[in-house]
Amino acid sequence: MRLTLSLDAMGGDNAPLAVVEGVDKTLDRHPDVDFLLFGDEALLAAIVEGFPRVKAVTRIHHAAEVITNDQKPGTALRSGKKSSMRLAINAVASGQAAGIVSAGNTGALMAMAKFVLKTLPGINRPAIATCFPTQRGESVMLDLGANVECDADNLVQFAVMGEVFARNVFGLNKPSVGILNIGAEGLKGNTAVQEASLILQDTGLPIKFSGFVEGDDIGAGTVDVIVTDGFTGNVALKTTEGTAKLVSAFLKEALTSTPLARLGAMLASPALNAFRRRLDPRRYNGAMFLGLNGICVKSHGGTDALGFANAIHVAVELIADGVNDGIKKDFAQLSTEPHNGRQAAAG
Amino acid sequence: MRLTLSLDAMGGDNAPLAVVEGVDKTLDRHPDVDFLLFGDEALLAAIVEGFPRVKAVTRIHHAAEVITNDQKPGTALRSGKKSSMRLAINAVASGQAAGIVSAGNTGALMAMAKFVLKTLPGINRPAIATCFPTQRGESVMLDLGANVECDADNLVQFAVMGEVFARNVFGLNKPSVGILNIGAEGLKGNTAVQEASLILQDTGLPIKFSGFVEGDDIGAGTVDVIVTDGFTGNVALKTTEGTAKLVSAFLKEALTSTPLARLGAMLASPALNAFRRRLDPRRYNGAMFLGLNGICVKSHGGTDALGFANAIHVAVELIADGVNDGIKKDFAQLSTEPHNGRQAAAG
Repeated sequence: MRLTLSLDAMGGDNAPLAVVEGVDKTLDRHPDVDFLLFGDEALLAAIVEGFPRVKAVTRIHHAAEVITNDQKPGTALRSGKKSSMRLAINAVASGQAAGIVSAGNTGALMAMAKFVLKTLPGINRPAIATCFPTQRGESVMLDLGANVECDADNLVQFAVMGEVFARNVFGLNKPSVGILNIGAEGLKGNTAVQEASLILQDTGLPIKFSGFVEGDDIGAGTVDVIVTDGFTGNVALKTTEGTAKLVSAFLKEALTSTPLARLGAMLASPALNAFRRRLDPRRYNGAMFLGLNGICVKSHGGTDALGFANAIHVAVELIADGVNDGIKKDFAQLSTEPHNGRQAAAG
Repeated sequence: MRLTLSLDAMGGDNAPLAVVEGVDKTLDRHPDVDFLLFGDEALLAAIVEGFPRVKAVTRIHHAAEVITNDQKPGTALRSGKKSSMRLAINAVASGQAAGIVSAGNTGALMAMAKFVLKTLPGINRPAIATCFPTQRGESVMLDLGANVECDADNLVQFAVMGEVFARNVFGLNKPSVGILNIGAEGLKGNTAVQEASLILQDTGLPIKFSGFVEGDDIGAGTVDVIVTDGFTGNVALKTTEGTAKLVSAFLKEALTSTPLARLGAMLASPALNAFRRRLDPRRYNGAMFLGLNGICVKSHGGTDALGFANAIHVAVELIADGVNDGIKKDFAQLSTEPHNGRQAAAG
């Protein structure tokens, strides 16, 4: 069965060209996806003309406005009703598309998606999640910035959503879940992480809870799902990016420091290129808004066609693996069980 | 003039051997330092016997007890009065030593150091600070775990202390200071970072305040001083460690993946070794407790002699560069100025 995605064709630093090129790249991997492109009709039509494969699978919908990066979420919500972002989200709500991808303003996208799509039953606040490489393979972390301050209840909900994601998308039978903290001992950290840990330990939640993890466990891949508040998660994620860049810069300096090092680097260049590809942030582009009644993926604003194609791939995966159905099922179960997370948090 | 440092010879996973060996390594760099070793007298005497250079510059003081890693700070404070850690700190308070270094329990060390040495005038809470490598050279970040939750006032005090440190130890004329946040715009983040930012912008503090920085600015070295609460700072620091390990593991895999890659790595091995040394966490070992009326440095518990020697070096540097005098001077100035940070925070 063919799938339809709606794209905010005007969001991001390199839009709309990177969006159209991203669709083109996507078709190698997912030839069975159709696209609704929202944005400046004349401009999009002209660009799409240059990509016959894209033209064959897209319909362009005119959107007169664009949400800018400096617009506040509230303003975007009130005055951006004709924007490419909003119309692309509306297409999901109306059932025309199965999911939406945008490289635009994160706060505006979250506010609009939450307003238009609503949250899934039992979820107070959606979270931003992303996958990242580890020494054991791949893990998922949430929240990455949607919720600056979180209580125990929020963290428990993130744990449930992350676990469903890891089970469905990573294909793990019993993914492990850890809460990011500043020490593994039960007494460390703030009230929210301590309470969330108690809830996940003591109640009948069907989650393999591994307790607290620390910043270095992110790269080690100690757990499959890392749960944290949006402030800490955002800092941690960007810190991994900055550190990877730093280490790469040091490596480059070392490998160009002497003639022998340069020769060695030349001989090892296929391996070094594979190493660089493995760390390429575009490969991990595509942050998922989990907890919404609809699939919404945020691409990095500065990415190119390759990165945008990956964000599209993330949306396809979320839909194909039925992540939202899994979340709905788990939260429905939670609310009928006597010892559920939310009751314990309230008690 | 010779300097005397007191060492908690029993703290850390590899104590007391790593401590004594660390002193031996220190003497290459700092031949003019004397040491007071606190710990099991018979054991220490036997070990020191094997290091004639160490024997010549140390005096051993018996301590019957050792603070363990699982002891809570409060318990350690009440019942650890005869511990090697406590007696080593006492030596600073009594003027016998100019500073203390311990690889023991962080929470206990901070609690005891705060109780025995007290904070400097004008400082509510001491902070843990450490230096780390960046693409521009070196930066300092604080707090790294002493204060899980911080208000704007705390952050402003950290900014002042960090600025003094960077000026005195990095030798910078006007070091730049940034607050770690999840976006560069003024509206991002929690109340504490927003208020602290306003105070640092608007009051007459003699600080080059660069506004908000993000996680990736840590590795980039965007600012010389990064200010954050202890929860976020601890996660960020450990995330850099984990990511550096992950990238190194990926590199190793790549460079052993094919015969040609192995040959290339062999030719480049001096450069690759230099690269590894540059990232060696032992080189950055030694977290400073800033804001105390006395120099106290915490070594990583799992470090070896090389790492412990670096922690000693950090203490020597803090003393030689007069960091505490600098902090005292700045806070004295602050409290006499009409528009100072604390008044603004209170208003």
